[in-house]
Amino acid sequence: MQWLTSPQNPRVKEWAALKEGKFRLRSRSYLVEGLRAVQAYRDAGAPLSALLYDPESGQAEQYHGVIAQLEERRVPVFAVTADILSRIADTDQPQGILAVAPWPEVDLESLLEAVSASQTGGKFPIDAKGRTGSADTDDSAGMTGLTGVVGCADVLILVDGLRDPGNLGTLIRTAQAVGVSGLLATTGTVDPFAPKVVRAAMGATAQMPVLRAAASRIIEAIEQARIRVVAAAVRGGVALYDCPLTGPLILAIGGEAEGLSPEVLELATTHVTLPMPGSTESLNAGVAASVLLYEALRQRIHAVG
Amino acid sequence: MQWLTSPQNPRVKEWAALKEGKFRLRSRSYLVEGLRAVQAYRDAGAPLSALLYDPESGQAEQYHGVIAQLEERRVPVFAVTADILSRIADTDQPQGILAVAPWPEVDLESLLEAVSASQTGGKFPIDAKGRTGSADTDDSAGMTGLTGVVGCADVLILVDGLRDPGNLGTLIRTAQAVGVSGLLATTGTVDPFAPKVVRAAMGATAQMPVLRAAASRIIEAIEQARIRVVAAAVRGGVALYDCPLTGPLILAIGGEAEGLSPEVLELATTHVTLPMPGSTESLNAGVAASVLLYEALRQRIHAVG
Repeated sequence: MQWLTSPQNPRVKEWAALKEGKFRLRSRSYLVEGLRAVQAYRDAGAPLSALLYDPESGQAEQYHGVIAQLEERRVPVFAVTADILSRIADTDQPQGILAVAPWPEVDLESLLEAVSASQTGGKFPIDAKGRTGSADTDDSAGMTGLTGVVGCADVLILVDGLRDPGNLGTLIRTAQAVGVSGLLATTGTVDPFAPKVVRAAMGATAQMPVLRAAASRIIEAIEQARIRVVAAAVRGGVALYDCPLTGPLILAIGGEAEGLSPEVLELATTHVTLPMPGSTESLNAGVAASVLLYEALRQRIHAVG
Repeated sequence: MQWLTSPQNPRVKEWAALKEGKFRLRSRSYLVEGLRAVQAYRDAGAPLSALLYDPESGQAEQYHGVIAQLEERRVPVFAVTADILSRIADTDQPQGILAVAPWPEVDLESLLEAVSASQTGGKFPIDAKGRTGSADTDDSAGMTGLTGVVGCADVLILVDGLRDPGNLGTLIRTAQAVGVSGLLATTGTVDPFAPKVVRAAMGATAQMPVLRAAASRIIEAIEQARIRVVAAAVRGGVALYDCPLTGPLILAIGGEAEGLSPEVLELATTHVTLPMPGSTESLNAGVAASVLLYEALRQRIHAVG
C-alpha cells in the first residue's frame, strides 16, 4: 500500500480524467466506484489496475477484506484523502473506495464465432446449491423446480442508440443474470464504461465481454458470421410470445427516443414487440430489454425442460 | 388563465410544500412535472387541480395545446415566473410546465372485490389498430400474431419496502403497460406520489388505482378477500417458469435490500424466484418485478391462445 496525498500528483489527474470518454479511450481504462462494485470485480477475478481508498472514511473498516485480497492479487493499492477521492469519483458523495479497471480486450470475430457454435439449451453444470456461476460466489440462488440451469450462452446483445446510462447499466446487469455471451454497443450508444453505466450495472460489466465499436464495423462482422438478428421494436413487430428466440441469436435493442438505426433494422430478420394491453405507450428501455432477455431464457429452459 | 407572480403567494408556498410527504398527506395532492407527464394525465382524463406554466420558457409554444384542452376541462391554469416554477418543482432544472393532481380516492375493499371477480384471459375489446386502451390514445402498438389483447385485470401489485423512487416508478409504468388493476403500497415503501416516483412512472400513475396504507390494514383486507398472494423472493422460491400465475392474484414485491416483511411473506402461498444462470447475484428491483408481470401476462395470453 502506498500513500498518495497530493491532488497535484499526475496519477490523480489521470484518474480524475477517466470521467470523460476521450480520456477513457486514450488510457483504455475506466472507473469502478463503491464497495459493492469493487467486490464484484474481486469475485469475478476481473483485472484492476489500481485500488484507491480513504483510510479515514467512516466505512474504512469494511474495506479491509477486499483490500487485502486485491493486494494479494498484486493490484496496486493507494491510500488517499477524501479530497482526492472526490476529485476522481463521478458521484457527488463518493464512498471511500474506488478502483480503476482496464478495458476488456474483446475480439469481435471470436465472440461471434463462439455464439454461433453455442447450443441452445445446453444445461450448465450446477453446483450443490443449485446454481452455476463463478467459483468465488459464496451465496446461493437455489430454486426448487429446476433440475439444471440453462443460460443464454448463444445470445449476444447489440445496443444501438441507447442514451440513458441507467438504462444501459440495468440492461448489462440483466444480460449477465441470464448468462448472455456478451454485449456489443455502437458508438451511437452511451459509453458502457462511463461511470454512471458502470454503477447501474452493479459489477456485471466485469463478468461479461463488452465491446464498443462503430455500427458499420459491428454490422459487417455480424453479416460475416451469419447469426440471426432479432430487433426490438416499440410497435409493429411480432408479439413477443409468438416469436421463437432459440438458437444462436443477436438481440438488437434501440434507443429510448428513436429506436434502432435503419442499418441495424435492415440487418434484422425479425422485429419483436412487447404486448402492452394497458394504455401506456411505452416501457422503460432497460425494462423492455430485460423482459425480452428473460423470454429468451424461458424458451431455452422449455426447449430442454 | 390567471397570472401569479409573487413567490410569497400562499398558493405558491402550498404547492412548493408538496415535495414533502407530510404536506402531500395533509393536502391530499401531489406534483406532476413536465410536459410528457401532464399530457399523460390529459390523455387519461385524470383530474388535475391546477396547471402551472412559464409563458417565457423556451418551450412555451409546445404547451399551448395541452393548456387549451385542460382549460376546456375547467382545470385552473396559472401563468407563473421561472423562479416560482423552480421553487415548486422537485427537479433542479424544471421544464416550464407542471400540474397539481388530487390523490386518487381508492377503496381497498372494492378494488380487491373487482380483482377477485375478474376472469383470467378475458380478451379486452380491441380497436382497429389492434390495441385496447382509453379512447384518448391516438397511437397504435398494433402487432401481428395477436388476435386479441389479453391483460392482467385480475392482478394487483402489493409493494412492501421498496425504497428507490426510480424502481417504484418503473414498476408502476410496467404494471400499467400489462394492464393490472391497481397497486397497493405499504407505508414502508417510498411514497408512490413523491415527485421522483411520479416522474419515473411517466404518467402511468394517472391511469391505475394506486393506494398507500399501513401493511396491517392491507393484509387484513387481502385475508378477507381470500385472493392468492404470490411473493417475489430473491432466492429459494419456485422457479418463475414453473409457477402458475393465472387466476386472481396479488403479486407481492419487496424492497431492494431486505425483500418482503415477514407479515407479507406469511400471507403468500407461493414464493417465486427468477432464474439467474449468470453469476450476477441480483437484478434491479424494478426489472425483476417487471419480468414477473410480463410472465403473468404471457400465461394469460397462452391460457386463451
